[in-house]
Amino acid sequence: MTKAIILFSGGLDSTVMLAMALDQGRDCYALSFDYGQRHRVELEAAKSITKHYNVPHHIITIDPSAFAGSSLVSDCAVPTNRTTTEIAESGVPNTYVPARNTLFLSYALGQAEIHAAEEIYFGANALDNLPYPDCRPEFVTAYQALINVSTKQAIEGSPPTLVAPLIHWNKTEIIRKGQALNTPLHLTLSCYQPFPFNEPCQVCDACKLREEAFTAL
Amino acid sequence: MTKAIILFSGGLDSTVMLAMALDQGRDCYALSFDYGQRHRVELEAAKSITKHYNVPHHIITIDPSAFAGSSLVSDCAVPTNRTTTEIAESGVPNTYVPARNTLFLSYALGQAEIHAAEEIYFGANALDNLPYPDCRPEFVTAYQALINVSTKQAIEGSPPTLVAPLIHWNKTEIIRKGQALNTPLHLTLSCYQPFPFNEPCQVCDACKLREEAFTAL
Repeated sequence: MTKAIILFSGGLDSTVMLAMALDQGRDCYALSFDYGQRHRVELEAAKSITKHYNVPHHIITIDPSAFAGSSLVSDCAVPTNRTTTEIAESGVPNTYVPARNTLFLSYALGQAEIHAAEEIYFGANALDNLPYPDCRPEFVTAYQALINVSTKQAIEGSPPTLVAPLIHWNKTEIIRKGQALNTPLHLTLSCYQPFPFNEPCQVCDACKLREEAFTAL
Repeated sequence: MTKAIILFSGGLDSTVMLAMALDQGRDCYALSFDYGQRHRVELEAAKSITKHYNVPHHIITIDPSAFAGSSLVSDCAVPTNRTTTEIAESGVPNTYVPARNTLFLSYALGQAEIHAAEEIYFGANALDNLPYPDCRPEFVTAYQALINVSTKQAIEGSPPTLVAPLIHWNKTEIIRKGQALNTPLHLTLSCYQPFPFNEPCQVCDACKLREEAFTAL
């Protein structure tokens, strides 16, 4: 049985990705991060979903001093009420966290070696590609090339494969796949600022992308 | 003035590297990690040295659950009384920490973006190349390729340069350079198991490499 480390936020994309990996018969190990994100409640969603699937779940705490300047980890305002097109065309938003996905993947790489996993799943999608540099196909390619030379697994001939199954999918396609796999989408949380009541704000980029995607079903 | 993030352990190599960067007129920002290493006292050496040079110093804490199975972060014994040649020829030792340098560099990449640094200094040397996969020239090359596509700095045309000035130097050459630059080598700590009295054990690989290098001066 192929073992896979799943980068898992508790959001819609990584939940569908987890369902896909399980559907492919993977032995999954979900990895989440507590990095001082303002939508930290997503970790509760992550716990519910891994419990639903009975998948081991590891939350790694990241020193908040490692990140700064992003609206995801500070008090500055996240962009609101933008359409999918506006989000795609507006450049790198202030919700970008410096080197975040590089760091998440580096933790996943260590976990892959520790657990002898053959795959690492990374849930970047086609809509993330434009605004976020660390969600693009060339980033995935470069990270795989790094994996191939950086660990004991690699130099012993078995580098893990970085799998990014959503990289060319839009949100509607992801939701359709989730529905086909009977994924518990109601347990997922995508909002960047789910407060004061842990409910989606309906106006941040994550909420707008999700809303538009469901509307387009 | 070129700003540089210096991966800084408080050991001999990174201290000489810091001295070299300062000698080259770099505006240095030293970055250390508290990752549950058994030689955690190296962070005290790092503090003394950055104070000596009046360089800003940032210690990032890494969740100890991220690493496992290495003698550097657990109770299993480190190899002892091996010569430089034996160390070089024995394969990946149990002092290897899975994906450690990939992770350290990923933190450095985030810091480079936050502080608008143009360079990241990484102190792997020629003796590290053989036992540790994440200290080899091909690792440095692959990491630079990743840097070039992974951050906002990069896609805006200014990816930081990964500088590994010691990558082809042996320990004796590094000490000579340190002496030429009047580096406070007496403040550095290289030992993997400096206890019970925070003194070098004289038998671990790090101590033996250091001893042989000073003997060969």
